Amino acid sequence: MNVEALIRAFESTRARSRAMCVGLSAEDYGLQAEPFVSPPKWHLAHTSWFFETFLLKPFATDYTSVDERYEVLFNSYYNGVGEQFPRPRRGLLSRPSVADILTYRAQVDDAMLQLLHTMDSANVEQIAERTRLGIEHECQHQELLYTDIKYSFAFNPLYPAFAEPPQTAAAAHADELAFDHYDGGLETIGYRGDAFCFDNELPAHKQWIEPFALAQRLVTNREYGQFVAEGGYQSPEFWLADGWTTVQTQAWEAPLYWREVNGVAMEFTLYGLQPRHPEAPVTHVSGYEADAYARWAGYRLPTEAEWEYAANQANAVPTGIEQGYLHPAPAQNGQALDQLYGACWQWTSSAYSPYPGFNPASGAIGEYNGKFMSNQWVLRGGSCVSVGDHLRSSYRNFFYPPDRWQFSGIRLAHSGALNGDAHDQ
Amino acid sequence: MNVEALIRAFESTRARSRAMCVGLSAEDYGLQAEPFVSPPKWHLAHTSWFFETFLLKPFATDYTSVDERYEVLFNSYYNGVGEQFPRPRRGLLSRPSVADILTYRAQVDDAMLQLLHTMDSANVEQIAERTRLGIEHECQHQELLYTDIKYSFAFNPLYPAFAEPPQTAAAAHADELAFDHYDGGLETIGYRGDAFCFDNELPAHKQWIEPFALAQRLVTNREYGQFVAEGGYQSPEFWLADGWTTVQTQAWEAPLYWREVNGVAMEFTLYGLQPRHPEAPVTHVSGYEADAYARWAGYRLPTEAEWEYAANQANAVPTGIEQGYLHPAPAQNGQALDQLYGACWQWTSSAYSPYPGFNPASGAIGEYNGKFMSNQWVLRGGSCVSVGDHLRSSYRNFFYPPDRWQFSGIRLAHSGALNGDAHDQ
Amino acid sequence: MNVEALIRAFESTRARSRAMCVGLSAEDYGLQAEPFVSPPKWHLAHTSWFFETFLLKPFATDYTSVDERYEVLFNSYYNGVGEQFPRPRRGLLSRPSVADILTYRAQVDDAMLQLLHTMDSANVEQIAERTRLGIEHECQHQELLYTDIKYSFAFNPLYPAFAEPPQTAAAAHADELAFDHYDGGLETIGYRGDAFCFDNELPAHKQWIEPFALAQRLVTNREYGQFVAEGGYQSPEFWLADGWTTVQTQAWEAPLYWREVNGVAMEFTLYGLQPRHPEAPVTHVSGYEADAYARWAGYRLPTEAEWEYAANQANAVPTGIEQGYLHPAPAQNGQALDQLYGACWQWTSSAYSPYPGFNPASGAIGEYNGKFMSNQWVLRGGSCVSVGDHLRSSYRNFFYPPDRWQFSGIRLAHSGALNGDAHDQ
Amino acid sequence: MNVEALIRAFESTRARSRAMCVGLSAEDYGLQAEPFVSPPKWHLAHTSWFFETFLLKPFATDYTSVDERYEVLFNSYYNGVGEQFPRPRRGLLSRPSVADILTYRAQVDDAMLQLLHTMDSANVEQIAERTRLGIEHECQHQELLYTDIKYSFAFNPLYPAFAEPPQTAAAAHADELAFDHYDGGLETIGYRGDAFCFDNELPAHKQWIEPFALAQRLVTNREYGQFVAEGGYQSPEFWLADGWTTVQTQAWEAPLYWREVNGVAMEFTLYGLQPRHPEAPVTHVSGYEADAYARWAGYRLPTEAEWEYAANQANAVPTGIEQGYLHPAPAQNGQALDQLYGACWQWTSSAYSPYPGFNPASGAIGEYNGKFMSNQWVLRGGSCVSVGDHLRSSYRNFFYPPDRWQFSGIRLAHSGALNGDAHDQ
Repeated sequence: MNVEALIRAFESTRARSRAMCVGLSAEDYGLQAEPFVSPPKWHLAHTSWFFETFLLKPFATDYTSVDERYEVLFNSYYNGVGEQFPRPRRGLLSRPSVADILTYRAQVDDAMLQLLHTMDSANVEQIAERTRLGIEHECQHQELLYTDIKYSFAFNPLYPAFAEPPQTAAAAHADELAFDHYDGGLETIGYRGDAFCFDNELPAHKQWIEPFALAQRLVTNREYGQFVAEGGYQSPEFWLADGWTTVQTQAWEAPLYWREVNGVAMEFTLYGLQPRHPEAPVTHVSGYEADAYARWAGYRLPTEAEWEYAANQANAVPTGIEQGYLHPAPAQNGQALDQLYGACWQWTSSAYSPYPGFNPASGAIGEYNGKFMSNQWVLRGGSCVSVGDHLRSSYRNFFYPPDRWQFSGIRLAHSGALNGDAHDQ
Repeated sequence: MNVEALIRAFESTRARSRAMCVGLSAEDYGLQAEPFVSPPKWHLAHTSWFFETFLLKPFATDYTSVDERYEVLFNSYYNGVGEQFPRPRRGLLSRPSVADILTYRAQVDDAMLQLLHTMDSANVEQIAERTRLGIEHECQHQELLYTDIKYSFAFNPLYPAFAEPPQTAAAAHADELAFDHYDGGLETIGYRGDAFCFDNELPAHKQWIEPFALAQRLVTNREYGQFVAEGGYQSPEFWLADGWTTVQTQAWEAPLYWREVNGVAMEFTLYGLQPRHPEAPVTHVSGYEADAYARWAGYRLPTEAEWEYAANQANAVPTGIEQGYLHPAPAQNGQALDQLYGACWQWTSSAYSPYPGFNPASGAIGEYNGKFMSNQWVLRGGSCVSVGDHLRSSYRNFFYPPDRWQFSGIRLAHSGALNGDAHDQ
Repeated sequence: MNVEALIRAFESTRARSRAMCVGLSAEDYGLQAEPFVSPPKWHLAHTSWFFETFLLKPFATDYTSVDERYEVLFNSYYNGVGEQFPRPRRGLLSRPSVADILTYRAQVDDAMLQLLHTMDSANVEQIAERTRLGIEHECQHQELLYTDIKYSFAFNPLYPAFAEPPQTAAAAHADELAFDHYDGGLETIGYRGDAFCFDNELPAHKQWIEPFALAQRLVTNREYGQFVAEGGYQSPEFWLADGWTTVQTQAWEAPLYWREVNGVAMEFTLYGLQPRHPEAPVTHVSGYEADAYARWAGYRLPTEAEWEYAANQANAVPTGIEQGYLHPAPAQNGQALDQLYGACWQWTSSAYSPYPGFNPASGAIGEYNGKFMSNQWVLRGGSCVSVGDHLRSSYRNFFYPPDRWQFSGIRLAHSGALNGDAHDQ
Repeated sequence: MNVEALIRAFESTRARSRAMCVGLSAEDYGLQAEPFVSPPKWHLAHTSWFFETFLLKPFATDYTSVDERYEVLFNSYYNGVGEQFPRPRRGLLSRPSVADILTYRAQVDDAMLQLLHTMDSANVEQIAERTRLGIEHECQHQELLYTDIKYSFAFNPLYPAFAEPPQTAAAAHADELAFDHYDGGLETIGYRGDAFCFDNELPAHKQWIEPFALAQRLVTNREYGQFVAEGGYQSPEFWLADGWTTVQTQAWEAPLYWREVNGVAMEFTLYGLQPRHPEAPVTHVSGYEADAYARWAGYRLPTEAEWEYAANQANAVPTGIEQGYLHPAPAQNGQALDQLYGACWQWTSSAYSPYPGFNPASGAIGEYNGKFMSNQWVLRGGSCVSVGDHLRSSYRNFFYPPDRWQFSGIRLAHSGALNGDAHDQ
């Protein structure tokens, strides 16, 4: 383990959280439109709480918290740590102020750096491991900060822009959808390297995979628009039963942020309300919508094993927020698997379950992943607002199938000759 | 009509709204804990909207709004004006910012002053009348701003203080509860003066009143605490059926802001969490609690006619926020009707109904009071956070019987010899 | 007191409950479509429970219940008696069977008759009083049985008929709406006779009434249909605020049982689905709809004092279910106040409140009326399914303003010259 | 295909549905305590509707329905057939009566037998296949009829008995829990025979299975009682996050039908309220409870592949309702896998997903299984109220993890040496 590299990663990650928020007003920092999103300032505080709780309190000598009440206020869901302030009310915490929370962050940063620079050999491995987990944890919250503030802004009819849109050239028409074919067989799935991974990516294990084909790019707004136009949201035959119930009770008629304004196809983005790019991937669709679209199109969603197996062969370097844009861009080409990372998370048909032999960490930190292994679906890849070097082919993201506020999109699959590439959409 | 006086009233009222908020942070300005409360900044905006909508747009020449979208954003409930931004989401409007709203206020102030100084004789009466209504409307919102921010702050376990508590001498023990007796008869109820009143106070009309007695002061925390201690919240026989259902579904066990902290009787106030003063009037009780307490104590609530008739004889000068404290103070003495104004609004047993011959204004402004005349109860008097010169004996405040977030308290009554003053509580 | 007459009244009332149910199948007896309605068999059991609880258990020697568990099962809302089986689940009591309940009724009847024939002089007055109350109570439940089964049947797309429709001649066109005028003054309201009345009709008391006019007949389907056709349900300006909220959340577009079938105006009745008679009174409207219609038509609802004062002058003999039809009939003529009784209950604008000096009975029986005195509105008169000799001009019926499942209709009023009879609807 | 055998299966299955209901009163037939259960009479009608819709209407010449409105009334969830009567209101259908529905059944039986005896060769295969599906479908509804009426009866404080309890000898103490070990490897899962199976059991496919061990019997009431007594329902660390939320919102403290009556451990059964047998398997537990128990005990739930692979080796003959008891019996011995069938369905850790290459039938009948493949968990085996010859090792039952009204129990598993048999519970 390289302590210097760890410290650099800590510093850059912590700095990134603050830099991300540069465009927010004090009033924006407190927004929470629904219980499942959190205010920006809560993300800033909770990520500090994580270091304080799992590193400073157990390992730092003479550490005293800025405010002991933060232990409850900024605990997300760790029953092993203690009580939690009720999630639906995070938006009511006008105090501590943003300034108070930045002070809290600074104090945690100072204490963490001191700990990292002075840790004794007895605990060095555990401290390093947990610090690395805290860094990865903060990367995850950075992505959530983007998707949460977008969700809260979307209720404001003034359509606030989180950032100024970049200058982008008009994209060419996307290539016709093409598929790569894979033979499958008895393959190994799960993380096999010696760097960091989450516990849910372990253990690596054998899995039998039948032959399959995977789309070279994500489904576009243009393609998805055809599904909408042809009555996809009015046709129960394409939907899972629970999905159809959701369509009706939520009155869904299109992806979360699509808007029609005076007959023009628009989309709410982190750049405010923008024209909807027909060649950009459709995003902010639920698992139910992804599944229904696939069925309508004569295909299916991939399993997570298929996705990982194909991604391992593609061997792409993950990239995300480093690309510098806050909305997914059109595919570049059709020669190989494109948009594995950096555009939209890709819904799989796999329920989020433990791998055979899964073994969560002991103590409160074991609540990180394992207890969420029911009712959710796995998404693979990464989005334009993911931190790129935090991703890898074995990374398992998970959300409930009705969830739409992430940058989630659709990559189609099929089982070889059964459906055929020549399918007429 | 005295135009100069009107202009002075306009200026001082507008200034008071801004001065009230001096202790709020930008983050406090957006708090909305439940749909029935509004964020401070929304109150600041809506009161400006009222002048803009009912005065500047119809009467001011060359008036253009800062932002046409405010017409929808800051409309509270006037269907006659048009659409309204959904009330439960007012807390999501981080934009326009507080600064934007202060700019809006300043622009409205300028335009209003210009209008008032230059109005031509054709419209002068209507302009003056509406301006006066806008002033009274803003006084009402000032009181709501206090009670709304108190409600939102109460969800924060840090117990934020809206203001620093004043230095107060310890109050003496309240006098034993005594009653004043009234003969009643065929009396006139409703506003009979020639200054401003709301439409719901009109027309003055005859009403037959049986002999009754009215408590000289409000029920204290000490007295109400006895009801709590003796199982009042566990005894259905004291409660209206709907009240008992509310007690059970809301799990009520005490007034809204009572807290027991390590065995000490505390109360959340605009000064933060404070010891509960046993001689101060109980406040933040619902109509159901007021009614149940009265039944338990062997009395009843007064009707609004009884209250007004007695208050007319008492002839007290209303005072409120001018007293300079943000929590109701103990009664001063027992010689006469005390605490009619300036401590707590007093629940009556009267449903909020139109007076015989009630005639609301035409147009959207007629929605001010009349459409709320169902399911609510009348409260009389005024509280420590009411604007004093905005009150009078005929003033009819109204809330739903389960509502508790106003400074509402209890004044007991009885029907002469039926119960007797010597009743043993 | 005439014991023989009391016994005859007891016997005929008890027999009427059974006779009413002749058309019900065993499966119909258990229907409960919503918590606020009760299954027919529950009504049969509860009315027996009332006699058992308030008469047999305290006064009959050697009385033992068929089943002690019925004390909880068939207690409606008397906390003073003890626990109650949860109201929303009454429809789940397939056991005890209808046969068991008829056995229970028979046993209660036998024991009651024995008690009435042998009561000793010490308790005779209290027994007679409570027996009379039990009879009136059963009359109320007979009316509820009709309205409850109608409500539950209405969810069945087969539109079951409770009874065969009578042969009726086509009614002539209703007369143009005319009004009777009244001077008002200081009048006495409340029951003043020496026969039975409910506690809520007492005490008789003085009330000042301004001059007013009252419609000679009820509003017809034809008239109400014009309100519907002209967008009444889409126009917030006619509605109380709570009424408008109800219209939107409940998606109301017409009275409860109106149906359009292939373009024909139909109405669900106790005779099944029938053509909607344009001259029959509109019925099954809520208080909110009654109020909105009145406002739209340029009138208002009467107060309960106005209604009672006018009805006292009209001096009509109440009649109801004895007329032999289960749906309200068109008005007979326009010369005098018509349809005071026997067609539809008439919504008043009066909130249901205690009369000055109201004094409920002590003990559990005091829960009969008093605890419901909040949030409800008074209806006056009686409907086609009321028991006629159970009605009188001082009778106060009460329901929540959104309630629609009673036979409730509209009688308009106005305040003399303010609106004028010549108003063009 | 043997047509005679098919006809005999049809006749015996149809007769069994009617015979099952012998103890029901007309009032019992209509009970529906929650939307997810159906009244007995609805089951009787819907199973007939299935034959009518998928066989008689397409294939029988001159077939006319008893009542065309039944097409909507008794459609469960087939959007491809058309509208459905709202599921939560099935209990309101007092008409058609039980007698009407028995007439409907008889008519369908007659027409079906005529069809089966006279089918022409063109359609014979499809008719036979669909008839077989209809038979299996009715077997499933027979099981639901038991569990649904049990659920509805449980709300009745009289604790109705569906049947008289059998005479049973006291069971000996269950053997200590022992495990069978399996090597796993690349195995084939899914139906491989040539008789009937459901589409969700296909296609048979390879799956890699790691070494594992499976408990020889189900968890008993005694064992589960220890989990309850040691605070299992108060300890979030044993629960999935969604499970813990359910425990709290539903206030779960024990399995669905456990009752403590005067300190005695009782259980509501189809025989009424009975003493809880400590050696009988715990039943009516949700998937969340099964999972939490396993975690508390140091084990886990098996995957469906593990279960099927082990059951294939055990080669037990499925039996169920033929055993003649309506409550699961204690295990017989500990030498081999016991209670695979005939006691309780066994929760697996497998989400209900399509097998690789799954292909639902076309048309409305394709809605049978496929559209439910989200958010549910697979249960394997069969219960005491399953029809025995309708079961097999590849059978996939599925319910939502919070569901408790089925006869669902717990079979533990572990991953070889990781946990060890010697684990101290």
